[in-house]
Amino acid sequence: MRAYYLHGARDLREEQVEVPPLDANQVLVRLRAAGICGSDMHYYAHGSNSGFDVKVPFVLGHEFAGEVADAGNHADRLPVGTRVAVDPSQPCRLCRYCVEGTYNLCTHTKYFGSAALVPHIDGCFREFVPALAERCHIVPEGLSWGEAALLEPLSVVLHAATRAGNLAGQRVLISGAGPIGQLLGLVTKHHGAASIAVTDVRSEALKLASELWADHTVLADSTEDMDAVAKLCGGFDIVIEASGAAPALRTAYERCNAGGVIVQLGTQIGDVSVPANLALLKELTIRGSFRFAHQFGRALDLLARRKLNVQPLITNTFPLSALPEAFDTALGAASVKVVLENDL
Amino acid sequence: MRAYYLHGARDLREEQVEVPPLDANQVLVRLRAAGICGSDMHYYAHGSNSGFDVKVPFVLGHEFAGEVADAGNHADRLPVGTRVAVDPSQPCRLCRYCVEGTYNLCTHTKYFGSAALVPHIDGCFREFVPALAERCHIVPEGLSWGEAALLEPLSVVLHAATRAGNLAGQRVLISGAGPIGQLLGLVTKHHGAASIAVTDVRSEALKLASELWADHTVLADSTEDMDAVAKLCGGFDIVIEASGAAPALRTAYERCNAGGVIVQLGTQIGDVSVPANLALLKELTIRGSFRFAHQFGRALDLLARRKLNVQPLITNTFPLSALPEAFDTALGAASVKVVLENDL
Amino acid sequence: MRAYYLHGARDLREEQVEVPPLDANQVLVRLRAAGICGSDMHYYAHGSNSGFDVKVPFVLGHEFAGEVADAGNHADRLPVGTRVAVDPSQPCRLCRYCVEGTYNLCTHTKYFGSAALVPHIDGCFREFVPALAERCHIVPEGLSWGEAALLEPLSVVLHAATRAGNLAGQRVLISGAGPIGQLLGLVTKHHGAASIAVTDVRSEALKLASELWADHTVLADSTEDMDAVAKLCGGFDIVIEASGAAPALRTAYERCNAGGVIVQLGTQIGDVSVPANLALLKELTIRGSFRFAHQFGRALDLLARRKLNVQPLITNTFPLSALPEAFDTALGAASVKVVLENDL
Amino acid sequence: MRAYYLHGARDLREEQVEVPPLDANQVLVRLRAAGICGSDMHYYAHGSNSGFDVKVPFVLGHEFAGEVADAGNHADRLPVGTRVAVDPSQPCRLCRYCVEGTYNLCTHTKYFGSAALVPHIDGCFREFVPALAERCHIVPEGLSWGEAALLEPLSVVLHAATRAGNLAGQRVLISGAGPIGQLLGLVTKHHGAASIAVTDVRSEALKLASELWADHTVLADSTEDMDAVAKLCGGFDIVIEASGAAPALRTAYERCNAGGVIVQLGTQIGDVSVPANLALLKELTIRGSFRFAHQFGRALDLLARRKLNVQPLITNTFPLSALPEAFDTALGAASVKVVLENDL
Repeated sequence: MRAYYLHGARDLREEQVEVPPLDANQVLVRLRAAGICGSDMHYYAHGSNSGFDVKVPFVLGHEFAGEVADAGNHADRLPVGTRVAVDPSQPCRLCRYCVEGTYNLCTHTKYFGSAALVPHIDGCFREFVPALAERCHIVPEGLSWGEAALLEPLSVVLHAATRAGNLAGQRVLISGAGPIGQLLGLVTKHHGAASIAVTDVRSEALKLASELWADHTVLADSTEDMDAVAKLCGGFDIVIEASGAAPALRTAYERCNAGGVIVQLGTQIGDVSVPANLALLKELTIRGSFRFAHQFGRALDLLARRKLNVQPLITNTFPLSALPEAFDTALGAASVKVVLENDL
Repeated sequence: MRAYYLHGARDLREEQVEVPPLDANQVLVRLRAAGICGSDMHYYAHGSNSGFDVKVPFVLGHEFAGEVADAGNHADRLPVGTRVAVDPSQPCRLCRYCVEGTYNLCTHTKYFGSAALVPHIDGCFREFVPALAERCHIVPEGLSWGEAALLEPLSVVLHAATRAGNLAGQRVLISGAGPIGQLLGLVTKHHGAASIAVTDVRSEALKLASELWADHTVLADSTEDMDAVAKLCGGFDIVIEASGAAPALRTAYERCNAGGVIVQLGTQIGDVSVPANLALLKELTIRGSFRFAHQFGRALDLLARRKLNVQPLITNTFPLSALPEAFDTALGAASVKVVLENDL
Repeated sequence: MRAYYLHGARDLREEQVEVPPLDANQVLVRLRAAGICGSDMHYYAHGSNSGFDVKVPFVLGHEFAGEVADAGNHADRLPVGTRVAVDPSQPCRLCRYCVEGTYNLCTHTKYFGSAALVPHIDGCFREFVPALAERCHIVPEGLSWGEAALLEPLSVVLHAATRAGNLAGQRVLISGAGPIGQLLGLVTKHHGAASIAVTDVRSEALKLASELWADHTVLADSTEDMDAVAKLCGGFDIVIEASGAAPALRTAYERCNAGGVIVQLGTQIGDVSVPANLALLKELTIRGSFRFAHQFGRALDLLARRKLNVQPLITNTFPLSALPEAFDTALGAASVKVVLENDL
Repeated sequence: MRAYYLHGARDLREEQVEVPPLDANQVLVRLRAAGICGSDMHYYAHGSNSGFDVKVPFVLGHEFAGEVADAGNHADRLPVGTRVAVDPSQPCRLCRYCVEGTYNLCTHTKYFGSAALVPHIDGCFREFVPALAERCHIVPEGLSWGEAALLEPLSVVLHAATRAGNLAGQRVLISGAGPIGQLLGLVTKHHGAASIAVTDVRSEALKLASELWADHTVLADSTEDMDAVAKLCGGFDIVIEASGAAPALRTAYERCNAGGVIVQLGTQIGDVSVPANLALLKELTIRGSFRFAHQFGRALDLLARRKLNVQPLITNTFPLSALPEAFDTALGAASVKVVLENDL
């Protein structure tokens, strides 16, 4: 089968490899759709993500859905042809965090297409992917492959919403209108927020947010606009930083109301200079949000029941064989979510 | 009467002024004991604190106790001679924060000896202080004047403990073994923490901590010692930053266990560089703690019932007339809590 | 002016009285619309509510809106003719609960048309009502008088939602499809619940719920239907008891999932027999919910921005002069919300 | 080996049985000390507990410690002779509750000496007990066998403390001064409660509480004494019901302060009549507490570091061969904790 190996920054190579053998607890999934995540883009553009470098060539990608091509021992629940989306977390189940239910903090977790753990597990940018049967969620007919591939980022966003606390009645600012910011907006609206403002450097992304969920949009460099929106909203009780831009984290400290909550969801690179004393004077609560625990099923339920419509976020679709072009598009300003379809 | 006015950095002047007239809701308190707070030291040393500059000369000091010298309209509850400690918060009672019970976040709060609000209220480094009758807590006979003057910082610390959450069974690291850090240690122990480590640059302060409450002490520049203590403790579930040193905030990010809580209690100056992505990867929760709400009565109860012994923290006592020397001692490394007694 | 005094069970008398003089902090409101609450019905039907008996004749009613007829000292903010809805809580502002922000627990609270405090304050079933200016919320033009009269019960329901915790993604059972249960349904849906089931003895009320917000309805005496719905939903993480029926509280204990939350919102009369050990075996959390704190403004915001549509809940409208008939209708099974319009 | 089988109410028979074979994940523990729990007493006295009847003869007992007699596959960590205390929970690890960290709610849990699950696991009132190696905690030399046998009830109590929330600074009422109530008292004091009152029908038990931890004791039938103590304490913010007596649950509703928390820890039999509307009017929060999750290690740490001294609670010690007499003593009013020592 064909697979795309990252050898270093911007060095992505199509290679012909053997279909890996299945473990007893796995099924083989033929890829149908895969999303490109911000972390994939970090690896692709810089050869590293969150401080983890590409040391050996590996396959990126962890947002995906496909058909069971080999059911292994699991033909009862997952016969060949079953449409599945795969929850990419494989926590250890034994450490303190796993037994306490916060398995996203398990440092032994295997995650598709991540260099954080050595040895890594290859990701989904390939024809066939072996996956734990128990992590395969059956996708109902009504959902498109693209929507199914968005279940993983939607799970990340639902987790961030739990870190934010109860969003109902809150005045929320989201920084970043990329795929994660857009999903956050949909979820925040669905959870009954009083108002939602969003800031980004890209006016196109703000336009989409405005159409789908945002009450107010602010171009990231306009202090006057932000002042005006903050005044209209009565300030922001909750700020969710989903851009990873250092100035956006500063803005969160500055714009969050006293007693409010900042959720850090965007990957920040290296040391970041923050007006730390504002956390004290305003008694802010700053909560990091990392991946997710227990949210994949709920994400599926939300899409299957049509409570959220994520289809408009898929702005660009490429065949898997055009993965490098897809990355370039994803890194550009004009796209929101880029999805790959398997043409191999 | 005599009062000490701060005119700028290290410019403290004894002046002769009129005893101020009482408002209907006030009594006049003759100072007996007053503590020097870290914020007083900031104002004294730098002419500013938390970004608030000395614009007009004013009197510092907000930790104090004394006798009622003029009962005004309040002779029934507070006859002349009553021993009182004064809660220095005077919130507006009308804003959102006041009506929701988090009055420490009220931006209209008047606080003795603070330049944060214009016009300010003069603090307690003077012979007589007018105080709201309702904020005067009667001090039982068994408590010394010095202990009574420590009720305000103890309230600050009890509030920080609520921001930390439930300390019982937690492995705690306190950075800073000054007066606030020492009070935190006593409270953390009283609340049933599993283990308490403390770090500071001053070995004398660590020695006192060790005698009173600390399970482990670490000189702030020893990475090896910190590694060893962290290993012994099983890491730190809660880190309370009480030094205001920027490197200590970085240490908090680095040393806090995944899923843990950092409380920011020390005043940080200006922008601070932090490894922000650790908050994400470890899902840290960082909570600022500012002054206190509803804690003064509990602080009094703890001392009155002898559940905490704060007397050993008073390492140096000066007459009020020696205020500048007292400040210099407080700013030195050898003291913990410096208390002034009114000799005027 | 005319007013309706309750002298005892089912003894409601129209009387001609003087318009009361205004206090300095009050305005006079000419009633335009008033809702009948379940507590009004308890007083009317039984001469008592929650154990508080009618001892002296008084005027019921606390859900109301009208026009400012005399602005007193408040002509600046509330000139004559201003459309207002009145938050009926008048807490003491001094007790522990008031200063801690849970003023709904203040036992000194004055509440329109309640016999709980002696002396009571007459309620709104009269031509003119004096009201605290600060408790008057200005009603925008787009809202009908009837909707404005529903702001108080909507506030009660928003408070109950906070007692339930975060409703997003939860499987909720509401018992009682009266006005409170219907408002709860609208709010629970708006806050992103995963599924909402409702049970009542009245099929008409269930039909309305089904049209407006319910995913599943169950006639209260059908164990088989409840079994089927519970299975479909995956059980109930949150049960909100809004009927006041003792069997409904038992059902809550029985049907709530392990680790779940029961909110007690319906007034239970006297001792109630419950399977208490289920609270232990399933580690249920049972939370009472009483009136509301800080929710009136949010209720107004939700209606003003058309995020909730409460108009369909007003099934019956009567002139104030037909108050006894209105009560009889409200006590019958066919109505949901009964609203009075001032024709005096 | 010898074992004690319960055949029905008060029908306990010593029988000679084979030592059971070990599973791969087990070690064989030679019993050294075992405590009698309230649930054991329910089974012994009534032939049932919490609605679960004795259907087939089985061995009671789940609080125990002993020496490894056969290390099975676990000789590395648990060589023969290792002193161990056994956490008796064996949850399924797969259900929602297990993966979310609240494994005490897992309905598939196997628990030593409980009839709740069919087939049951025999308990510890026998010479040798097979136990999961991973549930064996190594007991340091300084701890007595009796103390080690108290780790299980101490874990139950630590869990109840987490259900109560943060006990620091709270005014607490404990109903029931049996073993669980006494352990609760020690823990509540260790966690920094402001005051602790306790009520029981047995003056002897109250006397011990008074010596060890209680600020106030009240004989359960004295309303005047309870009034006086409630007044002294300023009411009770937290009531922990640890007696299982129905009147004590009523007292909890009546005596708990508005906004307070009731923890239900005592097993209530059948339907219980409660003044349910008080939960509404006072916005009480009632939380059941069932067994424990994640507390055994902390219990061991507290005893090993001598932060709690549970030895005085062991009022009676019997040889295992005198188990029926031990049960009779445990059911009497004069004992607190009855511990058995293996003499077989």
